[in-house]
Amino acid sequence: MPNTMKAVLKSAPKPGADLKQVAIPEVGPTDVLIRVRATSICGTDLHIYEWNDWAKNRIKPPQIMGHEMTGLVEKVGERVTSVKEGDSVSVETHIPCGFCYQCRTGRSEVCQNLKILGVDRDGAFAEFVSIPEIDVWKNDPKMTPEIATIQENLGNAIDTVLAEDVAGKTVAVMGCGPVGLFAIGIARACGATAIFATDVNRYRLEIARKMGANAVLHAVEDKVVESVMEETKGDGVDVVLEMSGNVNALKQGVQLITSGGRVSLLGLFNGDVTLDLNEGIIMKGVRVYGITGRRMFSTWYKAARFLESHLLDISPVITHQFSLDDINEAMELMKSGNCGKIVFFPNSK
Amino acid sequence: MPNTMKAVLKSAPKPGADLKQVAIPEVGPTDVLIRVRATSICGTDLHIYEWNDWAKNRIKPPQIMGHEMTGLVEKVGERVTSVKEGDSVSVETHIPCGFCYQCRTGRSEVCQNLKILGVDRDGAFAEFVSIPEIDVWKNDPKMTPEIATIQENLGNAIDTVLAEDVAGKTVAVMGCGPVGLFAIGIARACGATAIFATDVNRYRLEIARKMGANAVLHAVEDKVVESVMEETKGDGVDVVLEMSGNVNALKQGVQLITSGGRVSLLGLFNGDVTLDLNEGIIMKGVRVYGITGRRMFSTWYKAARFLESHLLDISPVITHQFSLDDINEAMELMKSGNCGKIVFFPNSK
Amino acid sequence: MPNTMKAVLKSAPKPGADLKQVAIPEVGPTDVLIRVRATSICGTDLHIYEWNDWAKNRIKPPQIMGHEMTGLVEKVGERVTSVKEGDSVSVETHIPCGFCYQCRTGRSEVCQNLKILGVDRDGAFAEFVSIPEIDVWKNDPKMTPEIATIQENLGNAIDTVLAEDVAGKTVAVMGCGPVGLFAIGIARACGATAIFATDVNRYRLEIARKMGANAVLHAVEDKVVESVMEETKGDGVDVVLEMSGNVNALKQGVQLITSGGRVSLLGLFNGDVTLDLNEGIIMKGVRVYGITGRRMFSTWYKAARFLESHLLDISPVITHQFSLDDINEAMELMKSGNCGKIVFFPNSK
Amino acid sequence: MPNTMKAVLKSAPKPGADLKQVAIPEVGPTDVLIRVRATSICGTDLHIYEWNDWAKNRIKPPQIMGHEMTGLVEKVGERVTSVKEGDSVSVETHIPCGFCYQCRTGRSEVCQNLKILGVDRDGAFAEFVSIPEIDVWKNDPKMTPEIATIQENLGNAIDTVLAEDVAGKTVAVMGCGPVGLFAIGIARACGATAIFATDVNRYRLEIARKMGANAVLHAVEDKVVESVMEETKGDGVDVVLEMSGNVNALKQGVQLITSGGRVSLLGLFNGDVTLDLNEGIIMKGVRVYGITGRRMFSTWYKAARFLESHLLDISPVITHQFSLDDINEAMELMKSGNCGKIVFFPNSK
Repeated sequence: MPNTMKAVLKSAPKPGADLKQVAIPEVGPTDVLIRVRATSICGTDLHIYEWNDWAKNRIKPPQIMGHEMTGLVEKVGERVTSVKEGDSVSVETHIPCGFCYQCRTGRSEVCQNLKILGVDRDGAFAEFVSIPEIDVWKNDPKMTPEIATIQENLGNAIDTVLAEDVAGKTVAVMGCGPVGLFAIGIARACGATAIFATDVNRYRLEIARKMGANAVLHAVEDKVVESVMEETKGDGVDVVLEMSGNVNALKQGVQLITSGGRVSLLGLFNGDVTLDLNEGIIMKGVRVYGITGRRMFSTWYKAARFLESHLLDISPVITHQFSLDDINEAMELMKSGNCGKIVFFPNSK
Repeated sequence: MPNTMKAVLKSAPKPGADLKQVAIPEVGPTDVLIRVRATSICGTDLHIYEWNDWAKNRIKPPQIMGHEMTGLVEKVGERVTSVKEGDSVSVETHIPCGFCYQCRTGRSEVCQNLKILGVDRDGAFAEFVSIPEIDVWKNDPKMTPEIATIQENLGNAIDTVLAEDVAGKTVAVMGCGPVGLFAIGIARACGATAIFATDVNRYRLEIARKMGANAVLHAVEDKVVESVMEETKGDGVDVVLEMSGNVNALKQGVQLITSGGRVSLLGLFNGDVTLDLNEGIIMKGVRVYGITGRRMFSTWYKAARFLESHLLDISPVITHQFSLDDINEAMELMKSGNCGKIVFFPNSK
Repeated sequence: MPNTMKAVLKSAPKPGADLKQVAIPEVGPTDVLIRVRATSICGTDLHIYEWNDWAKNRIKPPQIMGHEMTGLVEKVGERVTSVKEGDSVSVETHIPCGFCYQCRTGRSEVCQNLKILGVDRDGAFAEFVSIPEIDVWKNDPKMTPEIATIQENLGNAIDTVLAEDVAGKTVAVMGCGPVGLFAIGIARACGATAIFATDVNRYRLEIARKMGANAVLHAVEDKVVESVMEETKGDGVDVVLEMSGNVNALKQGVQLITSGGRVSLLGLFNGDVTLDLNEGIIMKGVRVYGITGRRMFSTWYKAARFLESHLLDISPVITHQFSLDDINEAMELMKSGNCGKIVFFPNSK
Repeated sequence: MPNTMKAVLKSAPKPGADLKQVAIPEVGPTDVLIRVRATSICGTDLHIYEWNDWAKNRIKPPQIMGHEMTGLVEKVGERVTSVKEGDSVSVETHIPCGFCYQCRTGRSEVCQNLKILGVDRDGAFAEFVSIPEIDVWKNDPKMTPEIATIQENLGNAIDTVLAEDVAGKTVAVMGCGPVGLFAIGIARACGATAIFATDVNRYRLEIARKMGANAVLHAVEDKVVESVMEETKGDGVDVVLEMSGNVNALKQGVQLITSGGRVSLLGLFNGDVTLDLNEGIIMKGVRVYGITGRRMFSTWYKAARFLESHLLDISPVITHQFSLDDINEAMELMKSGNCGKIVFFPNSK
């Protein structure tokens, strides 16, 4: 094993990223060192790359970027019992404290002291990552790296879709970024009987159709509310999944939700949101779920099972694969929106 | 039985109300005619009295006002089987169609064709009311009229509080109008272990304390968020009940809700609401319930049982009793806010 | 329209059934007269035909048998508003009272005064049926009669499977009669990631595979518990659906359920059941749901949507089609167990 | 600090218990050493004392008995962060593995590799106990030891009562041992509007009344089913809590549960149970919950809050207090049933 490794660093408090040679991380008694086979880009990574307001307030350079990943266990700390060298694993990148009110009542995804890989500590765009055992998820060795790295992100979609069940229900997915696209596939696999998808990017709407949407609508150019109302005979949809972070999408969502229906909010908005809560939520008796992401580890079990059973095929969403050397090219592609999920292979594939 | 009766009419499309002598309503084959013993004022009645924008668009004068009520069955239609002459009854004033998607899936409170007594047809500020059998609720004959008329309104509080259970949880009630005050009593009766109540009216905060609030806070003059956070050791409350329709109260609410907590929205806002959904709802993983009011008839069973078992004492909220002749005086008192619930006795008490 | 019609009668308190000419039923003000296009056999019909102990205590001959059905509206009572002559409809055969505790709290499927078509009053093995409007379900006119008649029975399977969601879960279906077979298809359509099916009849196990079971096991000859445990890596299944009414199947079920899992009980047992509740239910923290059948009308919406969206294909279960004249032949086939669902066409198909 | 301590040992595989001087337990890096202030007797301890069949198969003498306890932190391991020397703590005695399917999906109470204090390793009837940090619960320093030791056991009652909410519901508690008595108090505090309690011991029925039961019934001498049915006007109760482990109680329970109601099973039965599942569970559409005990740590939060808010007063159930020297006397009292909860004070009170 070498002493140093290749890693994508946010070196300084400004836009961009640097590929550098850095020390391999240390492994404490309850940690697991993983040789990264695949790591993928999340919207958060783009925010850090672009150095937006959120990133300026949260990130402390220099720090290794990235968090979605899979790899092989290289070494385990002396108190680690659940995995061993050579195991194929993925990583939950929320590191909860274990002792706050939320952690002690089964809600570690909203831990009061949550640390996030690649946000609050060194991340996964690197050849090696060290992570507490509690965050390690053991994969079926047959799962390919480009799929295994997606499972965490897929968990966000699972939590959004399955906040309540969708079996025998009609669903609108507002926003077809990668998580929205996963949501379509999951809703389809879990018995949604009609799925309407919206976005402003026709490239993504095309993938939406492949993922199982019954109808795809351009969020601005098509008459979204009228179309969905007509297709549902005036009832509207049972479930709205807001995955865009766009206020107009949310406004459309609360117009086309049926009374007594359910809305899941995953997309983060650009500032405060102005909304007619009376007509949109209260008088309709609607339930709204704020979604922070996957659960440890109920969404992971579901993600693995959907993939292993082939009930869900996410390959249409994995549109690009790169070497870590091409980080800047990949980030620019992310910015354009003309991509689904982008995967890196830090070690030789 | 006479041919005409006394009734409070919205006679013309303008503010005010008139006490007039009108025909006693007809009784169809599935209807029940009720001699009104007590009827109470709801915020909706005040909107109609004041002739606000909502009332202008919805109400078609001339129409008898009022909807909360109790009385004795005077006469039943030929197909009525569940009540008989002389029974003490109260009335659910939502008249659902029975055949829309919502009605056929157990959500008649958001029926697509809902008609409301005193809003879409003649109401209860009168000596007699005719109502479909499906809306009649049989009372324990021992229940007094001033309590029995409150049950429907109490159901709104029950649905707000019990959207999820409150047992062993901490609760903040934002807004201490009558429904907020009921909510405090219900939360207390159902195991909330700490209840924080806010309002801008000290008269109402005083009643809040009588109903069981552990701490009452002036929404503007006290440091609401800081106080609640201190009392809950930084965790915030498990449950926020928004009963004020005031945006600032809602903003306080999402600041003091614990991550993974639940918000119920009952109060209607004066126009669109501007809110930080990211920090307030999404990142906190909060669930929000829009509440339209009682359920047919699960909240009625609970209301009757809470009252009959004396687990809940609503007498501190019933602050004033009037003859129907004093409608204008009563309405002006409602406007002032220095009252709880106001009850009329259209027939001799 | 004729004055009399063909109908299958239980004429006398003894085994068998008679095809007779009887009066066409009357149509009250809130009733709908339906010209039957298709009607199908349920296990209950076989009990009545065979005149078992339950039937002896419940059925009052002479009475027309049968309840699952679909047809065209022939005539409506004067107060009927939701359907009109010529509409394609199916029928919920539970006739609830509307006013008991259960009916008034959204649980009319367990109404205290429930009347059942073909059990407590004349049924559907006939050319015409008269039914209260409240029980009429409007079909998509494109749905074929042999499918439309199955929807009620399908609702039993839907309620059994979806008592809690099955998305991303492993499921064991104990018993592959028609409702068990439907349950397999529904579990598959709703995201169950592994489905194990058991029965003692290989004909039915073959259909189970067609409906989407991942593994089929002979309940006696195969090592059911060992096999399922091995396939689930020792965890057992998340969900057990008991559709056989066989005690040994239930015993296997509680052995292979994972701790914290869910059991739905639909099959009725032949007498009392002896079970290790300690190990099977209590120490495992298992939830058990008694299932009486479909809900009015949430399971109907789901049934129609699964069928119309082609997420569910029930054609492998509809194994035989007969004229009503062949009632005895059909009943004998039912007894043999070598069939799925049997459909009659009382009027010319 | 001394080198040895007083402890109640199951020294040999036979009935009885011995008070001995033993070594103070070791403290690993993630362990907490607690100086025991109070420890209380659970039914399990009596089984071990009496050396019944279950104990013979599970317990490996010599081992220190007992598990319910509270004390002050004496010393913490080097990796412990959540408590410090001098803190008042209680202990969850389920020690979960943290990595099985159940642990990783929020159900550690049914961990596949669960170890229990006083059952699978040395217990709490001693002056000192060493326990993993993960199992330590920090008390309000104002809580008295005789109350603080009861919290774990109280959690069993909380989980039984609150498997679904009881607000506005009627409840039958079958069995008034300590956990049944706690359940009565909790149901009362959480809004149950009528509580029926049964037992065969009049001493315990008397305490039941003090805890808030509206009616107490002798399980054999009174007409339990008839009485409850009459009091509930024929509807039966919404909730049955089986806390006796007696088959006849369970049989009464399923007779008096209303259709669509809920049963919680906590009591362990003496062998297999023979039951009419058709009439008792299936045709009634009843939900049954197997209850293994408290949750880590949601039931602990509720227990602490109910006690600290004084919504729940458990003092009527704490009937006896002893020195550890009187272990045999206390155990004989337990056998007699003429007691509620018995508390020991291993160190000077």
